[in-house]
Amino acid sequence: MAMKSAASSAIRSLLSSSRNLHAPAERKKIVGVFYKGNEYAKLNPNFVGCVEGALGIREWLESLGHQYIVTDDKEGPNSELDKHLPDAHIIISTPFHPAYVTAERIKKAKNLELLLTAGIGSDHVDLNAAAAAGLTVAEVTGSNVVSVAEDELLRILVLVRNFLPGYHQAVNGEWNVAGIAHRAYDLEGKTIGTVGAGRIGKLLLQRLKPFNCNLLYYDRLRMNTELEKEIGAKFEEDLDAMLPKCDVIVINMPLTEQTRGLFDKNRIAKCKKGVVIVNNARGAIMDTQAIADACTSGHVAGYGGDVWPVQPAPKDHPWRFMPNHAMTPHISGTTIDAQLRYAAGVKDMLDRHFRGEDFPQQNYIVKEGQLASQYR
Amino acid sequence: MAMKSAASSAIRSLLSSSRNLHAPAERKKIVGVFYKGNEYAKLNPNFVGCVEGALGIREWLESLGHQYIVTDDKEGPNSELDKHLPDAHIIISTPFHPAYVTAERIKKAKNLELLLTAGIGSDHVDLNAAAAAGLTVAEVTGSNVVSVAEDELLRILVLVRNFLPGYHQAVNGEWNVAGIAHRAYDLEGKTIGTVGAGRIGKLLLQRLKPFNCNLLYYDRLRMNTELEKEIGAKFEEDLDAMLPKCDVIVINMPLTEQTRGLFDKNRIAKCKKGVVIVNNARGAIMDTQAIADACTSGHVAGYGGDVWPVQPAPKDHPWRFMPNHAMTPHISGTTIDAQLRYAAGVKDMLDRHFRGEDFPQQNYIVKEGQLASQYR
Repeated sequence: MAMKSAASSAIRSLLSSSRNLHAPAERKKIVGVFYKGNEYAKLNPNFVGCVEGALGIREWLESLGHQYIVTDDKEGPNSELDKHLPDAHIIISTPFHPAYVTAERIKKAKNLELLLTAGIGSDHVDLNAAAAAGLTVAEVTGSNVVSVAEDELLRILVLVRNFLPGYHQAVNGEWNVAGIAHRAYDLEGKTIGTVGAGRIGKLLLQRLKPFNCNLLYYDRLRMNTELEKEIGAKFEEDLDAMLPKCDVIVINMPLTEQTRGLFDKNRIAKCKKGVVIVNNARGAIMDTQAIADACTSGHVAGYGGDVWPVQPAPKDHPWRFMPNHAMTPHISGTTIDAQLRYAAGVKDMLDRHFRGEDFPQQNYIVKEGQLASQYR
Repeated sequence: MAMKSAASSAIRSLLSSSRNLHAPAERKKIVGVFYKGNEYAKLNPNFVGCVEGALGIREWLESLGHQYIVTDDKEGPNSELDKHLPDAHIIISTPFHPAYVTAERIKKAKNLELLLTAGIGSDHVDLNAAAAAGLTVAEVTGSNVVSVAEDELLRILVLVRNFLPGYHQAVNGEWNVAGIAHRAYDLEGKTIGTVGAGRIGKLLLQRLKPFNCNLLYYDRLRMNTELEKEIGAKFEEDLDAMLPKCDVIVINMPLTEQTRGLFDKNRIAKCKKGVVIVNNARGAIMDTQAIADACTSGHVAGYGGDVWPVQPAPKDHPWRFMPNHAMTPHISGTTIDAQLRYAAGVKDMLDRHFRGEDFPQQNYIVKEGQLASQYR
């Protein structure tokens, strides 16, 4: 990381006195990789998460003398991203349209100091390679946890209540209540288990509390008794013991080497027949074909989520076609409200980086060659 | 109402000692009008709400010596319903596939004593005509309030979070995050007003509480201070003063002569531009064309509900085609859980009727020629 020196102090004092008038000592090249807004870009002034919106920090960055390249072109050696890699100091990307920062790309990026995720989840970065190269990887922890938790509850309701067949009937000029009602249920009284109860899992459990469900959670860490009581969820020590109890299973863990493919054919078979699974965490936690097969057989009564093993998901991905799904592109963490929060978080970290200051501790994924504990 | 006499006491004691062995003194003809299950009828043993399921009370009714006709054929003078009207004692119907019991039909039904709604909402009955004819009209109050409140929250989330365009992309092989994200919002921090805060409205407010919204309610009656505080909603005395404050408006009032067409062009114009409206109460509370026009213009950013002015809704109903809707057939109150509850409630009222006993007070819509207060 640059500017850990007396020079950075000097710059810091310069910046704090009149930061928009004086360019910093070191001019940085910052590459932002976001999804394109296209015809939607101008429809909402708060739509800052797209290429055109560019997190709303272009004017600020340029006023500080930095160069800010923004693109959605991220795949293959001839992409805009690759073109700018050799002299980029900072790459900003999002989980919604991830710039895959592989070991090979890190090798090419001789000036790279910092990888920022506008949002949460930095598994698009080869974290070991980033650590070995002495890079810092950080995300805007907390920026969209509420957004994702709300979306999880939405998908639970869509599937448990069997909303989509009714919607299709409305659009298609039909009226067949039985076609919906024979497999529509109240959420009340059902058993819901979250696999992982970090920030998002806790927010989901809190929102589920008034629904009068039986709430369970599996996590590496048990909540303290007071919080557990407030949230009203029971700790489960053994994942495979929890799964058969659940009418609804929600995935709330990061993708790591330990969680990749965790829900394979065998583990899905341990779930109750007719289970609903919601996964807004990462697609690769599931075995793609095992989920598609279980939806087809009816063992899984519904699968919903906004994450796919590779994003954008290919046109022929089986989750697009399996029955009883509630899939969307990766969207839950990029509401307008979330965009404003993660744009502010990125700006704050850039500002601190330029000043040689530390980030909020919980934002670090890789710091000084060390991975955050959940990625080790 | 029959059997308010010494004879009924005698029957009552007979029934209570060995009710399945002795037929009652009076053999009743009961007509149930439900939606057809067709190919779905046998898929779920708890699917009691359809014609084939017949509320699960056929065996019981027939063991008591009663005749139980069940049909979905309810429209026009040649319908099964009309065929059985002249000698029917009791008609059971549901809001999901309502038997419209008009003044004309009541005139034809010389033996009619009792109209039961399997569910909540008896506006398919001409209540004044029923009262004038000395009939009793009752519903299973409370049987599906949780089901409807859950569905309201589902539709709020579907619309505020802009779920459906994302789902369509997933199904259609597309990936365009911007097309969703430019108008997707968190629910957190938004102002939500319920028009009516009876049983369903209160359950909705309770479920909304952990979402950290600004909750408002308009009702004839103000909650007591303690309940208001527990629910966390602010009372609004004037509907038209509340509407412009709301990002989301939810309708939770019965259809009466006072509420019919309440949301006409002028009242919709008073709502905030970009408002989301959810109406699982009754379709006729809205001016159909005014809602379609406001969705088309964008003044209403989303309209969702499961109720239509006439049900089944015609194939060409404008709400099927307007932009940004989350419409379904009338379904929210007929989940499997709700069906089991309202079937049990109907059985209980029939049992009480046969015994000459009163129903739970809150179930009455018309009792001894008097309408319940909210229908006056």
